[in-house]
Amino acid sequence: MNISKKEKFSEWFTEIIKEAELGDLRYNVKGFIVNMPWAVMTMKKMYSLYEEELEKNDHLPVWFPAVIPKENFEIEKEHVEGFKAEVFWITKGGDKELEEPLALRPTSETAMYKMFSLWIQGKTDLPLKMYQSTQVWRHETKSTRPFMRGREFHWIESHCAFSTRKEAEDQVLQDMRMTEKIMYQEFCIPFIFFERPEWDKFPGAIHTYAADSLVPDGRIIQQPSTHLLGQNFAKPFNITFLDESGKREPVWQTCYGPAIWRMFASLISINGDDRGLIIPFKLAPYQIVIIPINPKNLDKISKKTEEIKKAVENAGFRIKIDSSAKTPGFKFNQWEMKGVPFRIEIGEKEVDSGEFTLAKRFDGKKIKVKESELVGTIDWLAAEMQEAMLKKADEFFSDKTSTAETIEEFEKALKEKGGFVRIPFCSVEMEGVKCSDALKEKFHADIRGERFDVKEKPKGKKCIICGKEAKHYVYAGRQY
Amino acid sequence: MNISKKEKFSEWFTEIIKEAELGDLRYNVKGFIVNMPWAVMTMKKMYSLYEEELEKNDHLPVWFPAVIPKENFEIEKEHVEGFKAEVFWITKGGDKELEEPLALRPTSETAMYKMFSLWIQGKTDLPLKMYQSTQVWRHETKSTRPFMRGREFHWIESHCAFSTRKEAEDQVLQDMRMTEKIMYQEFCIPFIFFERPEWDKFPGAIHTYAADSLVPDGRIIQQPSTHLLGQNFAKPFNITFLDESGKREPVWQTCYGPAIWRMFASLISINGDDRGLIIPFKLAPYQIVIIPINPKNLDKISKKTEEIKKAVENAGFRIKIDSSAKTPGFKFNQWEMKGVPFRIEIGEKEVDSGEFTLAKRFDGKKIKVKESELVGTIDWLAAEMQEAMLKKADEFFSDKTSTAETIEEFEKALKEKGGFVRIPFCSVEMEGVKCSDALKEKFHADIRGERFDVKEKPKGKKCIICGKEAKHYVYAGRQY
Repeated sequence: MNISKKEKFSEWFTEIIKEAELGDLRYNVKGFIVNMPWAVMTMKKMYSLYEEELEKNDHLPVWFPAVIPKENFEIEKEHVEGFKAEVFWITKGGDKELEEPLALRPTSETAMYKMFSLWIQGKTDLPLKMYQSTQVWRHETKSTRPFMRGREFHWIESHCAFSTRKEAEDQVLQDMRMTEKIMYQEFCIPFIFFERPEWDKFPGAIHTYAADSLVPDGRIIQQPSTHLLGQNFAKPFNITFLDESGKREPVWQTCYGPAIWRMFASLISINGDDRGLIIPFKLAPYQIVIIPINPKNLDKISKKTEEIKKAVENAGFRIKIDSSAKTPGFKFNQWEMKGVPFRIEIGEKEVDSGEFTLAKRFDGKKIKVKESELVGTIDWLAAEMQEAMLKKADEFFSDKTSTAETIEEFEKALKEKGGFVRIPFCSVEMEGVKCSDALKEKFHADIRGERFDVKEKPKGKKCIICGKEAKHYVYAGRQY
Repeated sequence: MNISKKEKFSEWFTEIIKEAELGDLRYNVKGFIVNMPWAVMTMKKMYSLYEEELEKNDHLPVWFPAVIPKENFEIEKEHVEGFKAEVFWITKGGDKELEEPLALRPTSETAMYKMFSLWIQGKTDLPLKMYQSTQVWRHETKSTRPFMRGREFHWIESHCAFSTRKEAEDQVLQDMRMTEKIMYQEFCIPFIFFERPEWDKFPGAIHTYAADSLVPDGRIIQQPSTHLLGQNFAKPFNITFLDESGKREPVWQTCYGPAIWRMFASLISINGDDRGLIIPFKLAPYQIVIIPINPKNLDKISKKTEEIKKAVENAGFRIKIDSSAKTPGFKFNQWEMKGVPFRIEIGEKEVDSGEFTLAKRFDGKKIKVKESELVGTIDWLAAEMQEAMLKKADEFFSDKTSTAETIEEFEKALKEKGGFVRIPFCSVEMEGVKCSDALKEKFHADIRGERFDVKEKPKGKKCIICGKEAKHYVYAGRQY
């Protein structure tokens, strides 16, 4: 690898997937890929961290069927409208037509909420907080991209029910905090939460809040969204509880979808460099690789490398000894490209002196480490690395927001900086969709909505498209 | 729960699934269930232990698509014959017919091996050892049973390719050792590996070796099988490597399918008792439950329980404080039924004395534990528990094998003991299928094959069905 990630991001992304063996695109069904071991090992760690956090916040894991009967699917009108063009239908079992076609889950609301109506009877059944780690399938007509958009993707979906709107709103905030804690702090993916405009909400939601991140060329990529569903599903699905006064009330619901697959795309895009991947220490399939150098006295060296491996594994780290027949130089490049955080080089000299060279992937520097101090050193190097990665990601992200008050300024900002352009805008209700369409047509840019963490109203400003009085500041940009 | 597991196993099994909230059978697609949190939390631990062991043995995780194009599916003839009656077909995307129907994976050979032919070129690409943790779907026409047989089940499938038959045979042995190490040592499920007769092999395999276990009423349940596929798939799928002499040779393959879902059925069946579940310590969602007793001085007690929780969690154990409004007696029963290994009761007296009562689920005994010694005590109690569970499982399993040399003896053994009956049998090649059919028709019993670990030939014995000279000792019994 030696491709400019910033200048030629698409090419870089395609190349790293091939070179680091993350996905194989040659599977013979359009829109489906094979997720290869190096990617799967990393994503498994990503899943674990997210699941742990969800369980800390009292979400319980559940496995729902992958198939949803047509009748469930048609209960909530907006939802079925939003998804029906994308559903894969199972119509046959063996040679026989099924009595009723089964939808291959594009998302699980309609599978789960029918069961919620059986499980929830009284207040003691609430809150109900569940998640599942699974795949969903959508017959995407847009062009697909590995880990970003596909006809099959790997995600987590969390679904909650409460007795009050307030609790549901608090859950939305908790979902945002989890995104911060895991996607940002652990995966080093910066983001901004936007409240999506009316025309871009999740089908069936009252409010949709989506975390948008950026790819290196400045285009926007949507990361997880959390939705206040209100009682929009509870009513048609008849999910009700008996309140204090003995009245049946519909529950208040939320759902949240951290798509690990797509986060993996951002993780590699944001953290990588022109030479390949840089994987956060906690997530790396191997955290340290040992490379034996000039093994004239092979026994002596391999005895030492095995000793080190054992000590490092006992301390809870994942380590690989690469004693394959390739040259050290080839191995250095290979493991750097694959994003292994630390490399230790061991030759006879190192065995004799008990001091090794340790190369750090994230800053390319080398340090000398005594064998006796290795485990402790890895500990603090891991902390240093995480801090440095977050700093680098922040730097990339933080200057990608600009402001425009005219169409000309907008065009200039989009061209020069990319990222998010803050503009005065007429309306995020349905009447604003015309201006949104115009922006899309002219600049291929989308309105991402109002920023959730910064509330501000444009006073006396005009919508940059229609010129009417602006009611909101919204952020717009080009999607990857 | 208070149902005799031995006398009324089917009833017990149905009841425990409902009472312990393991699965909800009310999902509105026939043959599909919702796997509920208590079961999922346990199965996630089962998956982790198995995956760890697979990775120790150099299997790499991979995620293949859930859909397989019809053309792949039809490459190996026996395989397609074996599965075609059970395949769910996806024929539509949105409103449109797909150009080619997609099979919803019933097993992944035909998805994976087409890619193997791309990945394997030379000897350095071998061995190739991969596994995936996933679901498979089969349009079962037999009656389904939660965790035992369903139209969707959760499993691991491991697929390997080697340059020699010897290596493939060794892999089969390694698969058997993993079954012993994880399914027996960790899940406490005893089994015997049988080589299946010709008519009961995996479609496309040279040899099928299957681990059979028993349910409490003495009927047989098949657990994972490992298959020597030989070159039967390599040839039609064109998976070849260049050998030393520059010749293209087909690889030798194996596959192995530890079905976590079905192991969970055996785990609860074998280890449970008339009062409910007993879950091995490593797998229990909560390993310890604390129940506050007569909380007059609630603050004092909850301060102490929180302290204990923290200490126990820091030691790496999973603990739950049940401070719900139910009575202690109700909670005792509830958590016993759910199979939590240890229960600690804490009232004011315990807080003052610093000594607690700890109840052990597996033997029903109670012991006194000092707070300062709690963590260490849990450690050795966990070891004691595992040993006792294995002993109990062995006792149940070991006397379930008998020998019969006539039809009358067979009938008697089947009736009195159930389990496995060892019989002299004419042939495990295809000509034996007639005798097998006769046994099936008369006694609803199946030939499970020759025992793998004990090789013996019946000298001068006659097949108990046809009376011809017996070439094998086979084991037969009734399937659950």
